[in-house]
Amino acid sequence: MSVTAAQGFTAAGIAAGIKENGNPDLALVVNHGPRLAAAGVFTSNRVKAAPVLWSEQVLRGGEVSAVVLNSGGANACTGPQGFQDTHATAEKTAESLNTAGHDETGGHAPGTVAVCSTGLIGELLPMGKLLTGVDKAVAQLTPHGGEKAAIAIKTTDSVHKTAVVSGDGWTVGGMAKGAGMLAPGLATMLVVLTTDADVPAAELDAALRAATRTTFDRVDSDGCMSTNDTVLLLASGASRVVPEAAAFAEAVRAVCDDLARQLIGDAEGASKDIRIEVIHAASEDDAVEVGRSIARNNLLKCAIHGEDPNWGRVLSAIGTTSAAFEPDRLNVAINDVWVCKNGSVGEDRSLVDMRYREVRITADLAAGTDSAVIWANDLTADYVHENSAYSS
Amino acid sequence: MSVTAAQGFTAAGIAAGIKENGNPDLALVVNHGPRLAAAGVFTSNRVKAAPVLWSEQVLRGGEVSAVVLNSGGANACTGPQGFQDTHATAEKTAESLNTAGHDETGGHAPGTVAVCSTGLIGELLPMGKLLTGVDKAVAQLTPHGGEKAAIAIKTTDSVHKTAVVSGDGWTVGGMAKGAGMLAPGLATMLVVLTTDADVPAAELDAALRAATRTTFDRVDSDGCMSTNDTVLLLASGASRVVPEAAAFAEAVRAVCDDLARQLIGDAEGASKDIRIEVIHAASEDDAVEVGRSIARNNLLKCAIHGEDPNWGRVLSAIGTTSAAFEPDRLNVAINDVWVCKNGSVGEDRSLVDMRYREVRITADLAAGTDSAVIWANDLTADYVHENSAYSS
Repeated sequence: MSVTAAQGFTAAGIAAGIKENGNPDLALVVNHGPRLAAAGVFTSNRVKAAPVLWSEQVLRGGEVSAVVLNSGGANACTGPQGFQDTHATAEKTAESLNTAGHDETGGHAPGTVAVCSTGLIGELLPMGKLLTGVDKAVAQLTPHGGEKAAIAIKTTDSVHKTAVVSGDGWTVGGMAKGAGMLAPGLATMLVVLTTDADVPAAELDAALRAATRTTFDRVDSDGCMSTNDTVLLLASGASRVVPEAAAFAEAVRAVCDDLARQLIGDAEGASKDIRIEVIHAASEDDAVEVGRSIARNNLLKCAIHGEDPNWGRVLSAIGTTSAAFEPDRLNVAINDVWVCKNGSVGEDRSLVDMRYREVRITADLAAGTDSAVIWANDLTADYVHENSAYSS
Repeated sequence: MSVTAAQGFTAAGIAAGIKENGNPDLALVVNHGPRLAAAGVFTSNRVKAAPVLWSEQVLRGGEVSAVVLNSGGANACTGPQGFQDTHATAEKTAESLNTAGHDETGGHAPGTVAVCSTGLIGELLPMGKLLTGVDKAVAQLTPHGGEKAAIAIKTTDSVHKTAVVSGDGWTVGGMAKGAGMLAPGLATMLVVLTTDADVPAAELDAALRAATRTTFDRVDSDGCMSTNDTVLLLASGASRVVPEAAAFAEAVRAVCDDLARQLIGDAEGASKDIRIEVIHAASEDDAVEVGRSIARNNLLKCAIHGEDPNWGRVLSAIGTTSAAFEPDRLNVAINDVWVCKNGSVGEDRSLVDMRYREVRITADLAAGTDSAVIWANDLTADYVHENSAYSS
């Protein structure tokens, strides 16, 4: 499963000693071809980690032969030395793969090795351990290594996350880590997707961008955007099947959606998954802006945690946006009870049952025909505890 | 002190029974002239409570003879009935003042009575209790009622907040409630300032807008904006002194600054006051945008709570803005220790002493000469507890 569900890929996950607790912390995913096509989407944070700057360069060529990922350190805000370390990691990975004879594709070049890192910002990686770990990971590569790779990229994740969707003779699979998201992000989100479909880089790029726009980009656990978020999609072409473009795009979207939901379901300290659907918006942008404003309202997130259907805080959040709406035409439902009608008191709030993990908020802007769904989490004392002690 | 420090004002604070616990919940401030000049600044939330819609109309006339304020209910998102209730409150206040003979100014008109409300959104006020309370408050008006008025407008405030600054023969004083702020707001912020200086409405307006722009508007405890935030400035002219404009404006600013700091110091559940100074910005707007982004970063707010000088989260927050800067020229100090230099590791973070309530973050954008200061709070388990149980 995971990144080795598709043919043409091997993977490994090992403990390199980057994490002081001895847990697995280094993952390797290798594309054995015949294709090495790839696409990537990266954090929109202007402060980007060294591995993001490196991998953005790699992806410009449209080819990725291997992805090396480490947890235990983000290698962000680490200056020129941090970038040199990422470069050295790619060099070492290519060299080690070539030495081990993983050269079916004509030899690995450092320029086709993507690098991802996650962990604390502002500390240099222990490069001796990391480079030794690369050799160890290369030695353990197998076509069944997907689960171990998914485990090795965990940081505060309580479970590892994988998903697979199969088409007609081809497969898209992947792994994710993080309790967060791409555009805004809680901790770092790293995702590697693989497929054995025979798809060129441009089509991968189009499918991946369309998929992330409505999945990872609409997950907003805590409004914070990481310096390291990375989503990669690698195609080996090993199935020799050229899928219909729409079917392939839908498979990529389905895997992204599945993984995005797993991220929300495992968000740091969360007790509720909040599905915010904005309907009857004048534009999709309006719907997303309003959904995000609701998703980021700390007072509302606390109320949801307390199982309090406090719709006034939903209206307060809507009121801070520039979306088209009239205050006295707004309607809000919580778990399908329309507690606010025409901007005022609606159905009895005591009818709202909030005992379950999933809470559905529907905001009706009564201003058009567009809609969007944003997923968020509640704000809890556990979130505070986990994030006030993270680096100490 | 408070709103009765200046000559020409009386005030009262009583328990009208709006709050179920029997605490004081109704305040009245009356201007006895000879001037009735006034200015107001209101929430920029597009979902505005009925009293805000009413008082905005009142202030357009530039005259306020009385302000009636209630805690125990925000009268927000209450539809046409909510607005009628606010109107009835103003009518009753004018009538009761005229009946009691408080007509030195030629009789109170409802159109010069400003109304402020704070409490839970989405519930109608108990108008019988409130209107009876108005009579009771009028009967208790005294030139020493400022403290009682300040107490009656408290909601989750642990202390009442007042401030006074004296000029040459004139005074500016005031009261505030809320653990929050004007533009973005945690719970509702209500502020009434009074002065006996002889100042016309236009000059009051200019002084108040200039003052709130750099005080209440730069307080960002939890990024949430209220539907009810209101700041009023009333001038009686009773001192017969016409102050120099700059001195008067500075006094208004000083009182606002004092009250704003008190709000941050009493923010719900907070254990730290965070002073965020952005320096060397290309513009003041850039400095404010960056300061606000840092102020609203939940991960950073948790780290500050944990006394963890996690400067990587400061850089992450800066990176989400559109301000002018180069990532590798950013510098960040926490409590004057430059833990980040040139976008990378700076001085030893163990040198940062974070045991005290005030924490100072300095973000140097190295992009210009402008600066701004934003005040914020940390994110704590107490904040979550207080706000997850507020309406239940």
